[in-house]
Amino acid sequence: MKIVDEAIVSIITLLSDFGLKDPYVAEMKAVILSINPQARIVDITHEIEKFNIRMGAFVLASATPHFPAGTIHVAVVDPGVGTKRRPIIVETKRNFYVGPDNGLLMLAAQKEGISHVYHVNNPQYMLPRVSRTFHGRDIFAPVAAHLARGRPPSEFGPEIQDYAFPEFAKAHVRKGELLGEVLHIDDFGNIVSNISAENLEKMDIYEGCSLRVKLNSKTLTLKLCSAYGEVAAKTPLAIIGSSDFLEVSVNQGSASRMLKAKIGDPLRVSSAPSH
Amino acid sequence: MKIVDEAIVSIITLLSDFGLKDPYVAEMKAVILSINPQARIVDITHEIEKFNIRMGAFVLASATPHFPAGTIHVAVVDPGVGTKRRPIIVETKRNFYVGPDNGLLMLAAQKEGISHVYHVNNPQYMLPRVSRTFHGRDIFAPVAAHLARGRPPSEFGPEIQDYAFPEFAKAHVRKGELLGEVLHIDDFGNIVSNISAENLEKMDIYEGCSLRVKLNSKTLTLKLCSAYGEVAAKTPLAIIGSSDFLEVSVNQGSASRMLKAKIGDPLRVSSAPSH
Amino acid sequence: MKIVDEAIVSIITLLSDFGLKDPYVAEMKAVILSINPQARIVDITHEIEKFNIRMGAFVLASATPHFPAGTIHVAVVDPGVGTKRRPIIVETKRNFYVGPDNGLLMLAAQKEGISHVYHVNNPQYMLPRVSRTFHGRDIFAPVAAHLARGRPPSEFGPEIQDYAFPEFAKAHVRKGELLGEVLHIDDFGNIVSNISAENLEKMDIYEGCSLRVKLNSKTLTLKLCSAYGEVAAKTPLAIIGSSDFLEVSVNQGSASRMLKAKIGDPLRVSSAPSH
Repeated sequence: MKIVDEAIVSIITLLSDFGLKDPYVAEMKAVILSINPQARIVDITHEIEKFNIRMGAFVLASATPHFPAGTIHVAVVDPGVGTKRRPIIVETKRNFYVGPDNGLLMLAAQKEGISHVYHVNNPQYMLPRVSRTFHGRDIFAPVAAHLARGRPPSEFGPEIQDYAFPEFAKAHVRKGELLGEVLHIDDFGNIVSNISAENLEKMDIYEGCSLRVKLNSKTLTLKLCSAYGEVAAKTPLAIIGSSDFLEVSVNQGSASRMLKAKIGDPLRVSSAPSH
Repeated sequence: MKIVDEAIVSIITLLSDFGLKDPYVAEMKAVILSINPQARIVDITHEIEKFNIRMGAFVLASATPHFPAGTIHVAVVDPGVGTKRRPIIVETKRNFYVGPDNGLLMLAAQKEGISHVYHVNNPQYMLPRVSRTFHGRDIFAPVAAHLARGRPPSEFGPEIQDYAFPEFAKAHVRKGELLGEVLHIDDFGNIVSNISAENLEKMDIYEGCSLRVKLNSKTLTLKLCSAYGEVAAKTPLAIIGSSDFLEVSVNQGSASRMLKAKIGDPLRVSSAPSH
Repeated sequence: MKIVDEAIVSIITLLSDFGLKDPYVAEMKAVILSINPQARIVDITHEIEKFNIRMGAFVLASATPHFPAGTIHVAVVDPGVGTKRRPIIVETKRNFYVGPDNGLLMLAAQKEGISHVYHVNNPQYMLPRVSRTFHGRDIFAPVAAHLARGRPPSEFGPEIQDYAFPEFAKAHVRKGELLGEVLHIDDFGNIVSNISAENLEKMDIYEGCSLRVKLNSKTLTLKLCSAYGEVAAKTPLAIIGSSDFLEVSVNQGSASRMLKAKIGDPLRVSSAPSH
C-alpha cells in the first residue's frame, strides 16, 4: 500500500572555477534550495583553474558518466559572463547540462549524445534581477532548480544549432609514434594525456609492455603498469588511469613535479624495444 | 489525500575559518545530524582568513540574503573562544544566526532587521561536556540543531541588549571624492570596496562613465563597465559586482595581484573628466 | 497513524587524500547515490597529506565518535591500490568502516571496539569493471552504499583476523618526563601531540600549571591554559585540545610556524618549577 508519492529527488551537480573562500558557491546553492527544497546538490569541483574552459570540460566529462541518469549538471567557467555569449541547456540521451555557450558542457554532452540545445532567454526562470557578473547565481542556478522540478527544457527558450564546441586535440599516429598532449594534471601530480587505452591497443601496446615517452625534451622508458605499486616508491611509470587515458605517474610521488609538465604539453609515445 | 506530514526540512548553513583539512567541520556536522537527522547542511565557506571577523561578517552578509527565510546560519570566527565572550542567538525578521558575540553575525543580521538577541547559557542545548577550545562543535552546532527542531530561541538563555557590533567604515564623500576602503578580495582577485552603487549614483556616476580610482598610491582611469568582457583580456576595469559594491577587476586576470591591494586599503573614487 | 515508513536515512562519510580539484570525490558520491539515492553523504576531509596513512587515521578517529551510531565511514588513503592489499569492512560496536587494509581504519575502529573484519571480495557489490587505480570509486563507494541499504557485512566476503594495524607511538614516562610526539598539525598551526589529558594527570599536571616543553631543540615554559585567550595575542601556550590531547598553540597565531614543528617530531614535557 502506497499512499504518499515518494518525493522525486533530483540531483543537481555544480562545477566552477569559483574557489571555496567566497560566498559564490553558497549563493548558487541558496537559490537552488529556495526554488527546489528537495534538490540534492553535489559539488563536482570549484577548483577549476580560473577561466580554463578546457580543464573544466575535461573534469566535467570525467565525473558525469558516474551519476544516475536524469542528473542536472550545472557548470560555470565563464570568462564571457555578461557579454553576448548565451546561457544554454543541453539535453542529452541521459542528462541535462546548464551553463554558458562556450564549449564547457560539450565534451561531456557529446559522449552521451546531444538531443537538443536551448538558448535560455525566458526571464520567468531567472532571478528577478540578473547581474552581468554572476550568471551562475542569477540564471544557471534557478534554471537548474526549475528543470529539476520538471519544467520541460523547451520552455526556457528556443532551440539552437550554432552552439560553441570546444577544440580538443585528438591523439593520432605519425611515423609509428602516438602524438598526444597533456589534458589534465591531477592533485597527486599524475599527468593525464589524451591518449586512450584504445589508441594504445591499435599500436599493440598493452599492460606489461615498455613504453618510450617523450615529454618536454625528456625521453623516458616506462613500464605500462596496471597498478602504481608495481614499481618502487618514487619511480615513474605509465598507467591507464581511472578515466581510461594514459597517465604518466610516480608511485607515491608527483610526476608533474618530477617532469615539470603542464596542461597542453605535447607527448609522444611509442613501444620501447625490449632488451 | 495526505496522511503523513512532510518532514519540515530546515537548512543550517556553516561559515568558519577552520579550513577543510581537519576534522572540525565534520565534527560540527556530526553533532547537528545526531540531534536533527533531517537538517540540510550547506557550507558557506570555511576559508575565512584565520581570526578575521570582518571578512567573516562580509562573506556571511553576502550569502545569507539568498537563502530561504527560516534558515539557521551558524558562523564561527572566534578568537575569544573559551573566554568571557558570550555565545548568542540572533533572531531577525527572516532568519536565525548562531555564533560568538564578537560582531561576526551582526552585519548580516542588521540588514534583515534584528528582533532579539539571546545569550545562550542553557546547558540543556549544549553537548554534555563543553570544551573551551571548540564551541563550534560543543555549543553552536547543537544549538542550531535544536533551533531547527523548533525550540523557541528564548529557551536557550536570556535576552540581551549589549551585544557587540562590528566596526565597518562606510564610504563617504569629501571634496568631490568618494572615500572608501577594500572590504574583500575574492578568489579571482577582484577588489571589492565598500562603495555601493547608490553611493556612485549620488555622485552622478553610472555604467559607461569613466572613473578615477586612487588605490595604494596608484591612480587609474577605469571604465565603469557592466560586464568584464567589455575591456580586452588582462585590462583593468571598474564594475558593480554581484553584491552591489564597486569592484576593481581585471578581465580574465587578477586585480589584487596587479595592484597589490589588500583588505583595509583606502580607495578614492571620482568621476574622470572625459576627453 | 502512520502508513508510510520513514525512509531509513543512512549517513556515509568520506575521508581521503584526493584533494578537491579533481573529479574523484564526486565520482565516489555519484556511485553511492546511484545505488542508494537516500544516503546522506558527509565529507570529513579530502585534504589528508598524500599517502599519509597515519594522518588519515588520526583525523578519522577524531571525527567519527561524534557521528550517530550506524554511520558508515569510508576512508581512502591508499598507496597500495591495485596491489595485493585487501579491501575491508570493519564492523565495530557502533559503526562500519570501509577502506583499504593498511591500518587507516583501525585507530578509529579500535576506540569503538572491533567486532569483525571482512575481506571484501564479492564482485556483486563492486562496480562491473574495477580499475586498479581507483578502488574508492570502484569498490569502497559501492560497498558503502550497499551496506547502507542493509546488506549484512558477511555477504561481502570472508571474515579475516590478520588485518593490518597502524603503528602509533604511545606517550610514556621516562626519568620524570613525558615522551611523546607530534601527531597532527592543524590548519591553525596548532601542534597536536599524542600526550593525553590522562597522561598529564598521572604526572600531577593540571590546567593552570606551568609546563616545560622541549620540541626541536627548543625549550619553552608554557602555561597549561584552559582557553587560548588566557595569554596575550601571539603568545605561545599549552592547552588540552578538543580531542583531549595536549597541544602547543599560539593565541591568534601559528605555533607550527613559530616552532617549525612537523608531524613525527619528538616532544618532551615535564612540570616546570614555579618561582
